Amino acid sequence: MLGLDEPGKSRGSGGRKVTLHLPATQTRTQSVAAGPRVDIRGIYPPIATPFTQNEDVDYQKLDENLRKYAKIPFKGLVVQGSNGEYLYLTDAERVEVVRKVRLALPTHQLVLAGSGCESTRATVVMTERMAGAGADLVLVVTPCFYKGKMDSRALVHHFTQVADNSPVPVVLYSVPANTGLDLPVDAVVRLAQHPNILGLKDSGGDITRIALIVHKTKSQDFQVLAGSAGFLMAAYSVGCTGGVCALANVLGNEVCDLERLCISGHWDEARALQQRLIEPNTAVTRKFGVPALKQAMDWFGYHGGTCRSPLQPLSEAESQQLRLDFSTNGWI
Amino acid sequence: MLGLDEPGKSRGSGGRKVTLHLPATQTRTQSVAAGPRVDIRGIYPPIATPFTQNEDVDYQKLDENLRKYAKIPFKGLVVQGSNGEYLYLTDAERVEVVRKVRLALPTHQLVLAGSGCESTRATVVMTERMAGAGADLVLVVTPCFYKGKMDSRALVHHFTQVADNSPVPVVLYSVPANTGLDLPVDAVVRLAQHPNILGLKDSGGDITRIALIVHKTKSQDFQVLAGSAGFLMAAYSVGCTGGVCALANVLGNEVCDLERLCISGHWDEARALQQRLIEPNTAVTRKFGVPALKQAMDWFGYHGGTCRSPLQPLSEAESQQLRLDFSTNGWI
Amino acid sequence: MLGLDEPGKSRGSGGRKVTLHLPATQTRTQSVAAGPRVDIRGIYPPIATPFTQNEDVDYQKLDENLRKYAKIPFKGLVVQGSNGEYLYLTDAERVEVVRKVRLALPTHQLVLAGSGCESTRATVVMTERMAGAGADLVLVVTPCFYKGKMDSRALVHHFTQVADNSPVPVVLYSVPANTGLDLPVDAVVRLAQHPNILGLKDSGGDITRIALIVHKTKSQDFQVLAGSAGFLMAAYSVGCTGGVCALANVLGNEVCDLERLCISGHWDEARALQQRLIEPNTAVTRKFGVPALKQAMDWFGYHGGTCRSPLQPLSEAESQQLRLDFSTNGWI
Amino acid sequence: MLGLDEPGKSRGSGGRKVTLHLPATQTRTQSVAAGPRVDIRGIYPPIATPFTQNEDVDYQKLDENLRKYAKIPFKGLVVQGSNGEYLYLTDAERVEVVRKVRLALPTHQLVLAGSGCESTRATVVMTERMAGAGADLVLVVTPCFYKGKMDSRALVHHFTQVADNSPVPVVLYSVPANTGLDLPVDAVVRLAQHPNILGLKDSGGDITRIALIVHKTKSQDFQVLAGSAGFLMAAYSVGCTGGVCALANVLGNEVCDLERLCISGHWDEARALQQRLIEPNTAVTRKFGVPALKQAMDWFGYHGGTCRSPLQPLSEAESQQLRLDFSTNGWI
Repeated sequence: MLGLDEPGKSRGSGGRKVTLHLPATQTRTQSVAAGPRVDIRGIYPPIATPFTQNEDVDYQKLDENLRKYAKIPFKGLVVQGSNGEYLYLTDAERVEVVRKVRLALPTHQLVLAGSGCESTRATVVMTERMAGAGADLVLVVTPCFYKGKMDSRALVHHFTQVADNSPVPVVLYSVPANTGLDLPVDAVVRLAQHPNILGLKDSGGDITRIALIVHKTKSQDFQVLAGSAGFLMAAYSVGCTGGVCALANVLGNEVCDLERLCISGHWDEARALQQRLIEPNTAVTRKFGVPALKQAMDWFGYHGGTCRSPLQPLSEAESQQLRLDFSTNGWI
Repeated sequence: MLGLDEPGKSRGSGGRKVTLHLPATQTRTQSVAAGPRVDIRGIYPPIATPFTQNEDVDYQKLDENLRKYAKIPFKGLVVQGSNGEYLYLTDAERVEVVRKVRLALPTHQLVLAGSGCESTRATVVMTERMAGAGADLVLVVTPCFYKGKMDSRALVHHFTQVADNSPVPVVLYSVPANTGLDLPVDAVVRLAQHPNILGLKDSGGDITRIALIVHKTKSQDFQVLAGSAGFLMAAYSVGCTGGVCALANVLGNEVCDLERLCISGHWDEARALQQRLIEPNTAVTRKFGVPALKQAMDWFGYHGGTCRSPLQPLSEAESQQLRLDFSTNGWI
Repeated sequence: MLGLDEPGKSRGSGGRKVTLHLPATQTRTQSVAAGPRVDIRGIYPPIATPFTQNEDVDYQKLDENLRKYAKIPFKGLVVQGSNGEYLYLTDAERVEVVRKVRLALPTHQLVLAGSGCESTRATVVMTERMAGAGADLVLVVTPCFYKGKMDSRALVHHFTQVADNSPVPVVLYSVPANTGLDLPVDAVVRLAQHPNILGLKDSGGDITRIALIVHKTKSQDFQVLAGSAGFLMAAYSVGCTGGVCALANVLGNEVCDLERLCISGHWDEARALQQRLIEPNTAVTRKFGVPALKQAMDWFGYHGGTCRSPLQPLSEAESQQLRLDFSTNGWI
Repeated sequence: MLGLDEPGKSRGSGGRKVTLHLPATQTRTQSVAAGPRVDIRGIYPPIATPFTQNEDVDYQKLDENLRKYAKIPFKGLVVQGSNGEYLYLTDAERVEVVRKVRLALPTHQLVLAGSGCESTRATVVMTERMAGAGADLVLVVTPCFYKGKMDSRALVHHFTQVADNSPVPVVLYSVPANTGLDLPVDAVVRLAQHPNILGLKDSGGDITRIALIVHKTKSQDFQVLAGSAGFLMAAYSVGCTGGVCALANVLGNEVCDLERLCISGHWDEARALQQRLIEPNTAVTRKFGVPALKQAMDWFGYHGGTCRSPLQPLSEAESQQLRLDFSTNGWI
């Protein structure tokens, strides 16, 4: 189910010696998989997790969403990015959702599973469990609670340990709106040299930083994915090769259209489309968050529904503003 | 093991109807305990969690620390505040540490256990487990990952659900340096009316805000605890009744001395002592974090040791600066 | 018109060699005044500047305000602190207002004139002009436009140059809410050694920082003034010796009462008064700003009136909320 | 000396009634100039102000720089943007520098003069003086000291008053790194309808915001200029039509090359060039500021020299890092 790599730098090599201290019951992975590098270029919706009225995971509705996503030219799906409310799931739920998604998706679509936890050892364990559940790659967010101590030294150590031990390739994940910290550029550059780290999802939207990362990692064949549809076109212009876009849960074909226009150099058409996507995108992310994403999903024929508490449903006024952000741009 | 309440407002009443959606296997608590209100006034160290070389919880070293803390006039201990690396513990470890602490402590010392999780349902479950393990009260931090959506509405809902379901009284916990958000004053004021919410640990250090909270909750017999030794004296001056102070892990008697001087109105002596505590306090919190706290514990005869990764040991230069912050104030 | 110093460290000495590059037309001050140190302990309102309907300075209304302030036990007045809209005055207006204030005030009240500009040379010139207009001391705010470059090195250089050249003593001024930067503690400690720098007005409200500054400058006989009535009591508790309080423009006697209660050790009464001042104080500062201060002045018998544009009058809703912040605390 | 407008919306119309309260000595401008709209598309260096050893403006060195800039295909020059240390100049110096620049430049290059002050009335006066000194347009920065009160209402009022009274067209200027505030999108959209407001220089670098502004003002024929070379290509991709780039003071032809490549659709070449400009650009802006810009100007054959105090020269280590940021990208 992996795209084939063009010839060149080989990622993943055996025999890495690992000194991570894991729980006694944990089998340590002594090597990472060798083989052709996964091609991750393309568009991914970071899928939402549907819940029942009782706030249990609603696997049936999830499945119905997945069947619709399978018909959209997504490169894959991100399972348990920030929009997946992964922090509200138990460990068992996190793994089970990944398993269900992998089973439901066609093999040509990648499953990029969010396995980040606060501690290195928990992240290593979760990474292995998600790989075991069928994840093609893992997306690992920066730990953030002790943000004052999460400098390059700590973060390089963390991601190196995780990548050393992961059976599948790793994509770094920086999302300062939620974590309050940016993965520093020098840390990204250093981590890009790791054979089991393929790329970065950058949700901060600082296009200067993103362009610099593309520049300083280009000898590594490292892929940078825009973390939002709001700056997707700009990201392509400076050398990104894909996007993980909340809005793609709602307007999936349109986001894929934007990708196609950027790749094929139709910049004028791309610009016109990009501009119409900004307000809806902001509405389902920074402005109103996951509850708005789920509300919009309901409007567009998907199962969104409620969030787990403490996330609250939109107020009536918020819901109307959300609708306006879609309608004034011609989407409703 | 609870201090007795002075007569007055009765906290805790039976028969509260709860509509929280919990996992099917979860027994719902239909009522909160009635009875005299717990007196929480006093000093608490938010204890560190010692680890072995392999990063496993070192229960023996924990026990040795506890025996020393038992001889200091602490009101109790906070288990799994921010300094306890609780985000790096598994759920089982979190509960087990609480159990061990309760067993080791004399009954006159309270165990205030940090049971906060990101989701409401997980916090409810963890609260019950910690109460079952012997916690006298729980300390519940603000959920923070979706900080843009954690407004008063969401937070009041969250803490109300937790307090409705908790078998033991609840203390609110606001720590913006780690969470990136402050529990809004209006939410505190509203939550102070809940019979099962006794107080607030405020680690932000905005003394104007703290004084306002004391002012606006005084008809509720609500206790506000300073979340740091750095502003403990100022907090007493505006009406706080205790402190949860990282530095008390190292200079426990001295922090209790400061409490005594403030309560007894010896403001000049208090001021002289307070001033000497600021730099060491900042060093083991904002400046160098938990690794510095543990380093200083080693110097002062406790078991500190290493942190779980990704927290890194201090560099040599940091360690020297830490030492200087103690020595220039006459503590080493 | 200066309070006499208790015997001790002598501030101000002649013969300082100055290398500042000033405009050719500028007479360089080669020495600073010697003599007894000014006692600045006490309460100061940072006065507002009344304007006519045409936004010209209304010197008559200013004078009427001053006559009322003269009857309140203020130590002096701050002219052209942040509440004086000094950034909206021309250089000539700034000097003229200082002159008018000095003429109107009784000699026992100090005039502390805000002479800060962005450049060092302009600040030196303005300082001399204000001293010439009768200022007893100058209050010098941190330059802030190039905030990324305003580190301790730059700020120590700036304030040293200003103090070297000032005919009157200098008080440092840190107001991060407006400038976006805090004068670093190490810079304050170093500048406190300058014979012509007497103290600091700290409006940031970080009580831990304030206590540390008091601690680290106490061998210098350096005075720290709280920059707001919101944390005045806490500031006294940790060793501050006065306050520059916007609210004193409105509730001047009450703020002086709070000073008296703190100094005389009546902490319980002080606390009760302090708590009632917080909401009105926040309302006329952080929450609604100078337009609210002026509105409240009108209510309390002073001339407030409109601000210069771009500051806008309060909306009706804001005005009602402002009134509520006074009335719920029993002031209206 | 103005570029001609393509036919279409006419900006500037006579007879606007103005109610601004100006000093009595001020002649009020009752109308704004009618005529073809100025075409501002292109690249502008925001020029530095050279000083002598004594910190006086060095007009001769300025002139020598201007002669070199005249040979570069700049659309014009920004005089007294943030890099011009305009806050360190007296009002008279500000006007005189503009006059000198206009005299020295060929007529096909525009002079875009920074006339922003904190108060509306001072900005109106400075705008008229700069127009009188030959400025083709004025660049008006957001007032910022009372940042808590600078909401859309205040800012729309401010810029409207300025534009109503300006004899030359106005370009808005948002530079949050210095001012601590962003001109809100809704304010930009409203101001874009003013016939005398032509465009916006946006230095914040939030490409999503920039694209949204382009989108929501496109019916107004409003021009958005990128405020930095760091995101110039991305800005062109989303519809900006020029840039005001500090780096163009040093690498002027190269920045103009990047413009040409973007306009002509040579995106691959543009990307390669853009990426090499990021680190030098960051070095002379956010990282090391105006002192670094001037140091680099010296290296590249312009007169940079020292800044006015309190800006300090680079340390030796900073200077070496600055050199590295140019050399590793092949510019030295």
